[in-house]
Amino acid sequence: MDVKAAVAFEAGQPLQIETVQLDGPRAGEVLVEIKATGVCHTDAYTLSGKDPEGLFPAILGHEGAGIVVEVGPGVKSLQPGDHVIPLYVPECRECEYCLNPKTNLCQSIRTTQGQGFMPDGSSRFSYKGEVIRHYMGTSTFASHTVVPEISLAKIRQDAPFDKVCYIGCGVTTGIGAVINTAKVEPGSNVVVFGLGGIGLNVIQGAKMVGANMIIGVDINPGKQALAEKLGMTHFVNPQALDQDVVAHLVELTNGGADYSFECIGNVNVMRQALECCHKGWGVSVIIGVAAAGQEISTRPFQLVTGRVWKGTAFGGAKGRRDVPQIVDWYMDGKINIDDLITKVMPIEQINEALDIMHRGEGVRTVLTF
Amino acid sequence: MDVKAAVAFEAGQPLQIETVQLDGPRAGEVLVEIKATGVCHTDAYTLSGKDPEGLFPAILGHEGAGIVVEVGPGVKSLQPGDHVIPLYVPECRECEYCLNPKTNLCQSIRTTQGQGFMPDGSSRFSYKGEVIRHYMGTSTFASHTVVPEISLAKIRQDAPFDKVCYIGCGVTTGIGAVINTAKVEPGSNVVVFGLGGIGLNVIQGAKMVGANMIIGVDINPGKQALAEKLGMTHFVNPQALDQDVVAHLVELTNGGADYSFECIGNVNVMRQALECCHKGWGVSVIIGVAAAGQEISTRPFQLVTGRVWKGTAFGGAKGRRDVPQIVDWYMDGKINIDDLITKVMPIEQINEALDIMHRGEGVRTVLTF
Repeated sequence: MDVKAAVAFEAGQPLQIETVQLDGPRAGEVLVEIKATGVCHTDAYTLSGKDPEGLFPAILGHEGAGIVVEVGPGVKSLQPGDHVIPLYVPECRECEYCLNPKTNLCQSIRTTQGQGFMPDGSSRFSYKGEVIRHYMGTSTFASHTVVPEISLAKIRQDAPFDKVCYIGCGVTTGIGAVINTAKVEPGSNVVVFGLGGIGLNVIQGAKMVGANMIIGVDINPGKQALAEKLGMTHFVNPQALDQDVVAHLVELTNGGADYSFECIGNVNVMRQALECCHKGWGVSVIIGVAAAGQEISTRPFQLVTGRVWKGTAFGGAKGRRDVPQIVDWYMDGKINIDDLITKVMPIEQINEALDIMHRGEGVRTVLTF
Repeated sequence: MDVKAAVAFEAGQPLQIETVQLDGPRAGEVLVEIKATGVCHTDAYTLSGKDPEGLFPAILGHEGAGIVVEVGPGVKSLQPGDHVIPLYVPECRECEYCLNPKTNLCQSIRTTQGQGFMPDGSSRFSYKGEVIRHYMGTSTFASHTVVPEISLAKIRQDAPFDKVCYIGCGVTTGIGAVINTAKVEPGSNVVVFGLGGIGLNVIQGAKMVGANMIIGVDINPGKQALAEKLGMTHFVNPQALDQDVVAHLVELTNGGADYSFECIGNVNVMRQALECCHKGWGVSVIIGVAAAGQEISTRPFQLVTGRVWKGTAFGGAKGRRDVPQIVDWYMDGKINIDDLITKVMPIEQINEALDIMHRGEGVRTVLTF
C-alpha cells in the first residue's frame, strides 16, 4: 500500500515527506495506522549522523500512537481497531530477559531491530523499489507502519492519540526511572539534572510517589515555572551559584540526595549527579544518552561509602505491561501530559518541529497525520 | 596501667614493641585485653605513610579479639569477662545511619575516631608522657586497649581468639559483601577478582548462599588450590589467556556475571569487574581500597543497559548485630577460617608478619599476646 512518510534519506539532511510503499504484515506482525507521534532527541541524534549505529535511508520516529488496521498470521493479542502504542523495547515474555524481573531489556528481536529490519530480516518499507529501513522497531514518522506484535502495547480507546503518544518514550522513561529503576520511597529527597522532556517526567514521577524535596537543576531559568507546576520544590541554576553545585546540593538536602537522575547525557553532570548523593545509601540513575566514546568517572571511595551508580532505558518499563497503566494514570489525572505537549502540527511540518527542539523551545512537539 | 604494644612511631619505620601507658575506661568505654590480632593491608597502608589520613605516633591494628577487663560508667551491654571483637565500624543504634537499614556506616564517633581519639576527643594511650593515637577506634596491636562500648561485638565464650579475630575485618568484609551488599541469590554466577584475604571470603560467602559458578580471577596460580577448597568452581589467570579477560568471563558465564567483586584496590580491575557483568542485571561491588586520588571510569552505556556499580565497607555489616552471627557460623562449621590463618606468632614478631604479608605468602598471619 502507499503511505505517507517523513523519510530520512541521508544523515544531516532534512526529512522528506514522500509517498512510500508498505508491505502488509507477515506472521507475528501488525499493521498500525499512526495517528500522532512525538519528536525526540534520539531521532535528531540519529538523523545528525553522529549515531554510529544509524542507517539510511530510514523512517525514523519512536514515540507514536495509533490504531491496528490488520494483523498477520499468528497474532493473538491484538485485532483491527485496537488502539496501541509502539514499543522500541519489546516485551516477548519468553526470553531470558523478559522472564527476569530485574530488567526490561527484551532481547528477542534485538539484532534485526538494530539492523532496521523486521524479525525475519527484511523491511516492509520501500521507495521506488529501494529498501527503506525501519527504525527502533517502530518508524512512527509514517501514516502507517508495520510493527511486531510483541512491540505493541494495547491501550484504552478513549485516550487521545496526540497526548498519549508521548508515553511511548519520554513519559515512561522519566516516570519509570523513578518507579522501576530507582524505586523512590515516599519522603525521599530527589535531585533531577536537566528539566527537558525526560527530567520533567522524573519530577512528576517523584511527586506521584510522595517524594519530599524535588530539586530541579538546569542552567535555563525559563524551565522553572513548568517544573514547579509538575512538582519541583526547589530550583537550582548552577550558573547562578557562588559555590560548587555538588556542595550546594549536599547542603540543601542536609547530607545529599537519596536519589538523583541525570536527564541530559553529559558525562560531567553524571558525575555531579552521583557525588551529590547521600553517603551510605544515595542512588544515582543515568537516563541521558552520552555521545559515543564518552566516559564517566569518579573516585571509587564514592561507591565504597555507599553510593550506587545505575542507569535505565525506557524507564525500566516492561512496555506491554506498564504502558497501558501509565495511560490510565494520565486519564485519571494522576500525571500531567497536556502541559508538556507544547505544540501540535501536521507531519508535513516535521522539520520545523525538529528546529523547535534544537532551539530548546517548549517541551514536546507532536505531529499528527 | 602499663601495657605491651607495637607502636608506630613514624611512617615508613618498623613497629616497635614498647611498654606504653593506658588510662582506664571513661564513660561509655571498655578496657579490653586483646588475646589475638590479625595484620591486614590497611594497617600496612597506614604505616607506609601513603594514607593521607594516617597519624603518628599511633597503635595500629583493627582485627582483634579479646576479653573485657573493666567497663566505664554507663556501660550496660558488657561486663568483665565477656568475649568481644572490636569494630572499626561502630553500631550506636541511634544515629541516622544506624536507623537506616540501607547502610552500616554508623557516623556517631566518626570525627574523633578519624583523629585517633576516643569520643571525648582524648587518647588513653601515652608513652613517656607523650600522647599516642588510637587507630580505627580499635588499636588491637596492644595487649590491652580501650574501646567505645558501641564498637564492641559480644561473642560466645567458646570461640578461639586466634581464629575469630579474623572476623573483625577480612571474614566479615568478604562474606558481608555477598550477603548484605550484593544480596547474591542461589544459582547466581559470581566472579571474584583477587584471591587474597578478602576474595577468599567472598568465595566462601558465595558458596554458602548457593551460587552456581564461582569464578576466581588472579594472576597468581598459587592461589588456586585454597580457593577451590573454599568453593571456587573456575579459576581464571588473566596472564594465561589469549583474549581479553572481560570477553573471556562473559563467554564463560554465557552472558556475564550476575555479581562481581573487586577485592584488590586496582581501578583498572574495578572497570573489568563492572564490564564482565551481565547486561540487564549484573551488579559489581567494589571492596578493594584504591590509592588516594585514583579514579574509576567506564562508558555510561554500561549502566544504561542495566549494570549496577556499588561498593561496600566492612561488608555492609552492622557489627554488633552481625559479627556474633558470623562467629556462630564459624563454630558451626558453615565457614572455614582455620585454613585462612596460615601463621600464628607472638606479637613480638609483628614486623615479620608484615613482611610475610608484603611477600604475599599465605593468607592471614595472626599475632598473639
